[in-house]
Amino acid sequence: MMDQTDPVGAFMPGPRVKMPGAPEGPIVGLTFAVKDLYDVAGVVTTYGNPDWARTHPPATATAPCIMDLIAAGATLVGKTKTVELAYGLTGENVWYGTPLNPAAPDRFPGGSSCGSAAAVAGGLVDFAMGSDTGGSVRIPASYCGLFGIRPSWGAVNLTGACGLGPSFDTGGWFARSAAVLARVGGVLLPPGGEGALGPLLRVQEAWVNALPGVATALQPGLAAAERVLGPALAIQIAPEGLSAFYDNFRCAQAAEAWATLGAWVEANKPSFGPGVQERFDTARDMPPALAARGRAFRATMQERLRALLAGGAVMAYPTSPASALRLDADGAVQQTIREATMGVTAIAGLAGLCEVTIPVARHDGAPVGLSLVAAPGRDRALLALATRVAEEAGLAG
Amino acid sequence: MMDQTDPVGAFMPGPRVKMPGAPEGPIVGLTFAVKDLYDVAGVVTTYGNPDWARTHPPATATAPCIMDLIAAGATLVGKTKTVELAYGLTGENVWYGTPLNPAAPDRFPGGSSCGSAAAVAGGLVDFAMGSDTGGSVRIPASYCGLFGIRPSWGAVNLTGACGLGPSFDTGGWFARSAAVLARVGGVLLPPGGEGALGPLLRVQEAWVNALPGVATALQPGLAAAERVLGPALAIQIAPEGLSAFYDNFRCAQAAEAWATLGAWVEANKPSFGPGVQERFDTARDMPPALAARGRAFRATMQERLRALLAGGAVMAYPTSPASALRLDADGAVQQTIREATMGVTAIAGLAGLCEVTIPVARHDGAPVGLSLVAAPGRDRALLALATRVAEEAGLAG
Repeated sequence: MMDQTDPVGAFMPGPRVKMPGAPEGPIVGLTFAVKDLYDVAGVVTTYGNPDWARTHPPATATAPCIMDLIAAGATLVGKTKTVELAYGLTGENVWYGTPLNPAAPDRFPGGSSCGSAAAVAGGLVDFAMGSDTGGSVRIPASYCGLFGIRPSWGAVNLTGACGLGPSFDTGGWFARSAAVLARVGGVLLPPGGEGALGPLLRVQEAWVNALPGVATALQPGLAAAERVLGPALAIQIAPEGLSAFYDNFRCAQAAEAWATLGAWVEANKPSFGPGVQERFDTARDMPPALAARGRAFRATMQERLRALLAGGAVMAYPTSPASALRLDADGAVQQTIREATMGVTAIAGLAGLCEVTIPVARHDGAPVGLSLVAAPGRDRALLALATRVAEEAGLAG
Repeated sequence: MMDQTDPVGAFMPGPRVKMPGAPEGPIVGLTFAVKDLYDVAGVVTTYGNPDWARTHPPATATAPCIMDLIAAGATLVGKTKTVELAYGLTGENVWYGTPLNPAAPDRFPGGSSCGSAAAVAGGLVDFAMGSDTGGSVRIPASYCGLFGIRPSWGAVNLTGACGLGPSFDTGGWFARSAAVLARVGGVLLPPGGEGALGPLLRVQEAWVNALPGVATALQPGLAAAERVLGPALAIQIAPEGLSAFYDNFRCAQAAEAWATLGAWVEANKPSFGPGVQERFDTARDMPPALAARGRAFRATMQERLRALLAGGAVMAYPTSPASALRLDADGAVQQTIREATMGVTAIAGLAGLCEVTIPVARHDGAPVGLSLVAAPGRDRALLALATRVAEEAGLAG
């Protein structure tokens, strides 16, 4: 953490992985870092946990999405810290150190892609790859005052990336400008999906779920989106309540996390930091009926929300109900905020939607983001929209 | 009106136009009537006004949509009364007599397709063709306790039908059951549009706009729709207010009515019943800037609502904010109800959507309908949905 080249503690300790970008390409000259769950050939992927590192050999190949970025001209300058096995939203890592939140040093950076967010917010790289299962790009982007994207499920190739819940996992990234966020999308996203977007839908539950001060602080951002897309239509998408989104997401995803990682946990009895062990215990003990109920709810939400957004409609709501937690927040507060946060992040998480968060405001001394959320496959159009909204909101390109 | 074969005064006076249906076909055996703005070869189309009748020769050809019904097996048994030049919603006709509302004899039948609604509600025919520019099928269907459809704009061929506002006009029909409504659609509608529908959207403005008793009476109908499509999502589609829908519809449509019919009105100085002359005076004097504003609003609503419904979403709201007016209602009440009604009917009218009204309830001693509204081209799916909702609501097939 005393490293002069990493004042925010974003990178993994030790020698930095480096791969020079191609001499030409759409993102030539940009530097980037990758969350330490993406493989780079010859290096052990730690997945944020020393026991994982100990029990895994060096990667034999670099993840294709990383190779694509390098081939497009970007230079990889390091691997960044992650919450252990990507299973947490605060960004804490007791083994390698919790990165600093450069936008609010007394706060958590948000996770699980904490190091990638810190590296971008600290100006150490131009962009950074994270991953997002239940909010792991969106939340640190909101907390650190960054642009971030959770792409449509399946849009970014996750070969060579450690999985947490494969039917939820997505590869996302962070940038300090909408323009860079979109340029990276031009490399990583499949072609298509550039059609017109609108109308704008103001998702009532998510605004009510946010702290009043957060909702107020985000109004100018929403107004900027309205100047681009026309007046927001208020909609209630979850008569079941956001708590049902949280609870069903949690059950379905926990069962999948155990299916994905449980054998390794059982075989290796790893040491985990606070919270992570408890989450894996819950995952192990998740009753199959609850997981099945969660998957059924997901199917319903996929059908509902994809139909609602199929014509180009864009949902708008606070990325997180609160700004970043203070580092000394107690466990009960953390859990309350976690549940309220995941009720919102589960919207796109369950339905496989694409979501961009825009750092339009601050509340209580820390950043808060406004999310724009579109149908699966609309990623490119959503990034273009985010660029226009950011300009309207007065955020430098 | 004393005619034993027409106790409700639905048909035009004089000899009945009759054309036997083909011996085979999907609607063989059904009888029907047509609003007297559809041409039948050899007969003068009156358009509800004696001066129109006097100044027009007998039709040289039968409207293709009528021929299609006959070719599909239905037998035409007469032409029905219409509000003069289809320009009114109460169903009054001072020249030929206002049809009785068989479902509420002290009330107006609703218009302009008043005779067609009365003929079906009175059991004189199995179905009847009307037309709908600003509510002229939907309102009499709601008032008379019938199923009625305003098809997507352009879905039914209006060749051989008198026009009021060609960019708004649609050919719709009435039936006493959803099954017959759908069978007629099978003949008249273009192929396609049978895809899955949902989610259900409860349009807040239109429910608030309705009399509280009407909104309450329609709740069981909405619940029936929810049993088919899942929980209704509350949405606000008109931050501009329903009054903007009414006002912009009125301005755009009035200018078009004058463009369509003004030359005939000027040349022939027809006698009109109460209200109709005033509406044509307003149409004549409509400032071009207001008409242009109305058309611009329409373009915005088309873009917004078509995008919102493109994936299959279905809006639900009261077809009319009130049950039928009493025959002795004074002019001020009529105008107030007219404006509140057209704020709702203008939603589909402006955006060219398809709308089916289902006679799910009564309020204050008269019927009220629940409308289901879908994207242009979804007519067949909407009719199938209406059949399922009607079954759920306990309406006999």
